[in-house]
Amino acid sequence: MRIALDAMGGDDAPGEIIAGVFESLEFLDPDDQLILVGQEKEIKSHIPLLAKRKKMVSIVDAPEIIGMNEKPIESLRKKVKSSISVLAKLAKQGKADAVISAGNTGACVAAFQMRMRNLPGVNRPGISVVLPTFKGPVTICDVGANIACKPINLYQYAVMAGIQSEFLLGVKKPRIGLMSIGEEDAKGNEIVKKAREMLKSDPNINFIGNIEGSDIFEGVCDVAVCEGFVGNVILKMAEGLVKGLFQSIKHELMQEKLRLALKFKPVMMRIYKKYDYNEYGGAPLLGVNGTALICHGSSKAKTIKNAVLNAKKYSNNQINEKITEYLSNSAIRNSDEQGS
Amino acid sequence: MRIALDAMGGDDAPGEIIAGVFESLEFLDPDDQLILVGQEKEIKSHIPLLAKRKKMVSIVDAPEIIGMNEKPIESLRKKVKSSISVLAKLAKQGKADAVISAGNTGACVAAFQMRMRNLPGVNRPGISVVLPTFKGPVTICDVGANIACKPINLYQYAVMAGIQSEFLLGVKKPRIGLMSIGEEDAKGNEIVKKAREMLKSDPNINFIGNIEGSDIFEGVCDVAVCEGFVGNVILKMAEGLVKGLFQSIKHELMQEKLRLALKFKPVMMRIYKKYDYNEYGGAPLLGVNGTALICHGSSKAKTIKNAVLNAKKYSNNQINEKITEYLSNSAIRNSDEQGS
Repeated sequence: MRIALDAMGGDDAPGEIIAGVFESLEFLDPDDQLILVGQEKEIKSHIPLLAKRKKMVSIVDAPEIIGMNEKPIESLRKKVKSSISVLAKLAKQGKADAVISAGNTGACVAAFQMRMRNLPGVNRPGISVVLPTFKGPVTICDVGANIACKPINLYQYAVMAGIQSEFLLGVKKPRIGLMSIGEEDAKGNEIVKKAREMLKSDPNINFIGNIEGSDIFEGVCDVAVCEGFVGNVILKMAEGLVKGLFQSIKHELMQEKLRLALKFKPVMMRIYKKYDYNEYGGAPLLGVNGTALICHGSSKAKTIKNAVLNAKKYSNNQINEKITEYLSNSAIRNSDEQGS
Repeated sequence: MRIALDAMGGDDAPGEIIAGVFESLEFLDPDDQLILVGQEKEIKSHIPLLAKRKKMVSIVDAPEIIGMNEKPIESLRKKVKSSISVLAKLAKQGKADAVISAGNTGACVAAFQMRMRNLPGVNRPGISVVLPTFKGPVTICDVGANIACKPINLYQYAVMAGIQSEFLLGVKKPRIGLMSIGEEDAKGNEIVKKAREMLKSDPNINFIGNIEGSDIFEGVCDVAVCEGFVGNVILKMAEGLVKGLFQSIKHELMQEKLRLALKFKPVMMRIYKKYDYNEYGGAPLLGVNGTALICHGSSKAKTIKNAVLNAKKYSNNQINEKITEYLSNSAIRNSDEQGS
């Protein structure tokens, strides 16, 4: 399998990206290929050992870089030789079987959608993140690919993230919840209400109904479906809150007794490790016709290694084929003629 | 001042509500009046000491109760003698200067809006909650009153919650952030983008721009403005995540050593106390023509006591007068003829 990686994307690129690629090698098959896309000279300066591994790792030059805070569409138009643009082109031309980037999320979504197109039957792709919680991992889709969400999109996110949960995480008959502001049928905005009807009418979905913000951490569902704006807020809020709470605990412990703080440290580290999202290595952009994983901007080598392994698993488990088959058999289609 | 309370609303009503009312008495002025609205017999059975305080506490009978999970509009129509309906009527008839309920939020919002009407210049009221964070309290508006939000609503939430932050919490020139999915101008959905332009064009608002989910806990803003759906998810998620994380820490500590867990307990209790939302006693429904506070369903006596004091402060500080004056001087009006 040929997996192309954005060597220039992320807060710690290219160092951590390249390190992650090399960490992943021992877990791959001999005929797997990893393609580092980015500024060739810069990449080479980070790989003193490339010669030894050259059979598995290659470089495709992409002289331009899209910054983390650049406007997605504009930057893609201006920088056709950026690593993200080149990555998307490799996928389109069939020169890469999977693409991975920890760069500008908006630019990745736009480039991958534009070049790879959607899977048959899919109206809009969604980013599907696995969030580790105290009651097990919860898959959340969408977390920001689509901020003009329609009911059919939410229905398809449920289908796609359900397949991801079952075949990537091994959850049998994943329980699917629809993010809303109350459990009853009557609650939620119009889009959520319509999506709820669609989900209820599909007997093959293990739909548990509306969920609320607190339910994500209560172990009531394996998949949480929501529009991209809401999902993005959830994801970023979880990060900020956990970070803040740990800082606060540390502060209080230091006030109490330094020795107590030191004793507590390994406990905190264990919790951090247990609920480390880096373990899940990248979020698939579900619904594009190919394998595309988007990683957190702060990704370290471990995240990238896990993303590479995740891309293989995604492909080996034929997630896209399962999504296409499911949607081709589903009676639920977009009834809204106006849009996708 | 006459403050009417829903004696039947909340998970621990009427016990905790009545206890809260009596706890608040010592902080009130001699001519203040507290009115308990609910099933008279039930209320009386909880007040053996009522006789002693009867000058300050009275009862208004409301034989029906709207359950926490009943459909708001439907239940208000069916139960005209419910405590929430009677509460709203007291406000409308000028028999109460403020109303407080920990009951069904949707029913409270609908009843208060319908009976009390909006302040001049306000298009849609919003619930404004103070969330304690590690970097200080953040006021979030709206957290669920309005789930069909328009740009003008977001602008007015900024104005109203800003005044609340300044005159109830004492924050000078509160920094106001607009919840979105990225910091740049170009990010966010159409409603957020338009609201952003409105906020930028008002020189009297200390607008810091877009914020993300993580920023709420980073101390970058004093007020976070968002649509009700998003705000509701934020609020519930914060509750669920903090609870889950504390359970998880406890679990890990127990694995480690029971003695360590015991030592950690007072630290956890201190953090709990420091970031206890009950301190802020009820969230004002900003924009209605009167003083209406909505409390969490799990409110205890302390929350209710603080809500009573908060209602006094809200009224004494003339929050509504300040909102009306601000909006009457603002050049920013609803340009969308279609809606509110």
